[in-house]
Amino acid sequence: MAVYDEIMAKYREAALTGSVIAIMGWDMECYIPPRGYPLRGEQLGLLGQMRQRMLSSPELGKLLDKAESKAESSKLNEVQQRNIYLLRRQYDIMVKIPEELTMAIARQATKAVNIWKQTKAKNDWKTFQPELAELITLLRKRGEILMEVRQAPTLYDAFIDVFEPKMTQDKISKVFTELRNDLIPLVDKYSKAVKSSDFSFMSRKVPVEQQRKISTALCDYIQYDTTSNQAGGRVDETEHPFTTGYYDDVRITTHYYEENFAASLYSVLHEGGHALYEQNYPPEGKFQPWGDATSYGVHESQSRFVENMLGRSKEFITYFLPTLNKITNNTFKDISVDQMTQAVNKVERSKIRIEADEVTYSLHIIIRFEIERDLFANKVDVTELPSVWNEKYDKYLGVEIRNDSEGVMQDTHWASGYHGYFPSYALGNIYGGQFLAAMEKKLPNWLDLVASGEFGPIKQWMVTNVHLKGDLYNPEDLLQRITGETLNAKPFIYYLTTKYKNIFG
Amino acid sequence: MAVYDEIMAKYREAALTGSVIAIMGWDMECYIPPRGYPLRGEQLGLLGQMRQRMLSSPELGKLLDKAESKAESSKLNEVQQRNIYLLRRQYDIMVKIPEELTMAIARQATKAVNIWKQTKAKNDWKTFQPELAELITLLRKRGEILMEVRQAPTLYDAFIDVFEPKMTQDKISKVFTELRNDLIPLVDKYSKAVKSSDFSFMSRKVPVEQQRKISTALCDYIQYDTTSNQAGGRVDETEHPFTTGYYDDVRITTHYYEENFAASLYSVLHEGGHALYEQNYPPEGKFQPWGDATSYGVHESQSRFVENMLGRSKEFITYFLPTLNKITNNTFKDISVDQMTQAVNKVERSKIRIEADEVTYSLHIIIRFEIERDLFANKVDVTELPSVWNEKYDKYLGVEIRNDSEGVMQDTHWASGYHGYFPSYALGNIYGGQFLAAMEKKLPNWLDLVASGEFGPIKQWMVTNVHLKGDLYNPEDLLQRITGETLNAKPFIYYLTTKYKNIFG
Repeated sequence: MAVYDEIMAKYREAALTGSVIAIMGWDMECYIPPRGYPLRGEQLGLLGQMRQRMLSSPELGKLLDKAESKAESSKLNEVQQRNIYLLRRQYDIMVKIPEELTMAIARQATKAVNIWKQTKAKNDWKTFQPELAELITLLRKRGEILMEVRQAPTLYDAFIDVFEPKMTQDKISKVFTELRNDLIPLVDKYSKAVKSSDFSFMSRKVPVEQQRKISTALCDYIQYDTTSNQAGGRVDETEHPFTTGYYDDVRITTHYYEENFAASLYSVLHEGGHALYEQNYPPEGKFQPWGDATSYGVHESQSRFVENMLGRSKEFITYFLPTLNKITNNTFKDISVDQMTQAVNKVERSKIRIEADEVTYSLHIIIRFEIERDLFANKVDVTELPSVWNEKYDKYLGVEIRNDSEGVMQDTHWASGYHGYFPSYALGNIYGGQFLAAMEKKLPNWLDLVASGEFGPIKQWMVTNVHLKGDLYNPEDLLQRITGETLNAKPFIYYLTTKYKNIFG
Repeated sequence: MAVYDEIMAKYREAALTGSVIAIMGWDMECYIPPRGYPLRGEQLGLLGQMRQRMLSSPELGKLLDKAESKAESSKLNEVQQRNIYLLRRQYDIMVKIPEELTMAIARQATKAVNIWKQTKAKNDWKTFQPELAELITLLRKRGEILMEVRQAPTLYDAFIDVFEPKMTQDKISKVFTELRNDLIPLVDKYSKAVKSSDFSFMSRKVPVEQQRKISTALCDYIQYDTTSNQAGGRVDETEHPFTTGYYDDVRITTHYYEENFAASLYSVLHEGGHALYEQNYPPEGKFQPWGDATSYGVHESQSRFVENMLGRSKEFITYFLPTLNKITNNTFKDISVDQMTQAVNKVERSKIRIEADEVTYSLHIIIRFEIERDLFANKVDVTELPSVWNEKYDKYLGVEIRNDSEGVMQDTHWASGYHGYFPSYALGNIYGGQFLAAMEKKLPNWLDLVASGEFGPIKQWMVTNVHLKGDLYNPEDLLQRITGETLNAKPFIYYLTTKYKNIFG
């Protein structure tokens, strides 16, 4: 077998094992009987270990060395070279980070998450702080190796690179600062536009059975097939919504609250956006490294496009309100399209990221980014995190954090060791704005299509330009190809200001 | 690491992989979106291959050789020696049967099953026959190797040994002939006892929602926990009911027919019996070879005990009829315990095995056993199967087979290459009769317990005597330890005649 084919045969097993892990993880969230958890831990542990062994074996290393030689490399086309490049990136991390360090980080993260859960409930930062500090010390060691492997200029750049290949803190700082400066006055303006109490109709009771029908209608709308005999998806119910699977079997979950039907509605659209991406990776890339997302941020751009740009548009509400009334036996018969549109776009100065609206959300992320950046540049110490956090929330969002549970301890990311992950959430908004601007050139009437329920051409644009590219390009290269631009927050700001002006006047 | 521990560490991975295959198979039957089937085929293919590699690696072979040396073997206790013995049996089969032969059989079985499906629908034995003949030719080659590995005296003994270790066709012939001779007059007597039309109330409509509640009540009764926060089981819905899983995560499925509530009722009890066995293998045997069933027949004895001996007893109906009426809003209010008991025990001269009652069922199996036995002894040719089949159905069951679809082509087993499997079904009845007789000595009032809903002591007897023994003994050794007897059909016949006399007079 040729060197390249041999590498791909090995990768195929790792990818398949990964796809098994996805389904076993899904089952653990959805259907496992409670006594089965410890066994599932052992099953997932073994599968993870097998995947790790496959992707870091000395044989694979030798094959990669061969494939990278001039003689072999010149035989490969662009896609094949990309596959070797992506696999090498992964291989080097797996091989060069000592197993003891990986284990130590996993152990400390498990400990930190446990203590975080307890101390968050008791608003006890002091007890959590040394655990976080210890984890960060270990992460710095990992970061130093990552810096070398990923050729990242700084520690924090190396962490970012895991989630957004080749993105840097300098590029992000620049656009995030611009974004922040534009968002702050928007929050100011629209948080005063309406009183929340005007939207009490949003808590009218919608029984779970009806909400399940709403989910199906939404999936049908976005052409995420969960019902036909050609369906490649399904919707189940979990505490926290997520998307998982591989190509022809990509599943989403949602959570139904009878007095907050919009929670599930937007979860389904959000996860549905992720699912469309995963279902439409290039077919030729199946079981190959490039048959994957290019980054967490681009993944998030797809979910946020469907959830926010489409799902919170007046045009979508125009289309969907009659369906909603049909399913709910006219629970919202007295509500106008304008009222509903305002309700799902209301802006509030908020403290909790996961409850934030479209305008404030990025500010929550920018705060976390700035803190992470300064932490790894030694400009902020772990002990200072609460005060820095509270200061920024006051300055950017105008809210007073009264305790660390609603402040610096609200997210699990830092306790889990996911440093460098947060920026991707806001990058998703920025990429989404840039993609939208490019799409509008091809489909200037896209909102008319939304209003008439014709999602086909919109989906097709996303599939052709983003999904089918898989991981052929790093995120900024993909951006360049689609939009002709580098990272740029202006299109997102333009989209937001235009929309909000139209909705709230 | 000591040789034995090293072997167990390797086996642990194979057992865990097997438990992953179980859940991935379950998901394929229960929840997979249709487009996901081909991917699932690749996932299961890889997992099976990995398990095969683990159980047939040269390293494992060397370790087994060492463990079997006098020096090592003398260090091992009874359980440890059994583990080495069981693993050796498995290893030798995997290693000594050439991969090409295994592949050829798999290919031919796939082909034969496909053609069987088509030709069965068209009642076309002639087209199916050469495919079956080809499969049997390949199986004979496999059987010759099995004979050597399993030290079986004949080809057919070798096939039986796969499902019932150390059971032989001679032993089975003897008890099956006895059983057959006792069953034929019973069928004659009780098939005339009542008219089927008397039981038309059994097709009263019971909506699926109510049947789901019946399932839960049945699982609660047999203490197969599917609902508490300590549950280790669950009930889902598939075309054909089955049981799968491992230790703390053992799941059953059923199929609901609105106009045949008893179908699911007895499926749940049957699969529940299997599930209790699998949940109660010895805890110390988890991830070890002896943490498993001793044979297919003993497995079947556990399902048939719960389904038939318990579930079709007048005492169970006495207990359960009020529950049934409560769940179904008195759908069976006018039906007496005697009527319902007769209905679930009616005897019919039947042609189709899977629809057969408790009296005729073993006759269906005995016919298949006699045919398989004579086939592999070259006393019957593949071309003669239909005529031999029809003759035996006429002689033992008194029915005239009008075409091969309702005759020799009704089961998938032969097309699938599962020769030697059928005897286990009737052995399950025979073992069950022997176990029951032993249990009655300890719990002479067991039917009173059934009537008052106290399954605890009965379950405990099964767990202690059968389940917790795992695969520590071959089936007949287990029988000997529990009952002091070798294989013997008399207790089963005694149980049947006594029950039928009580029910039908």
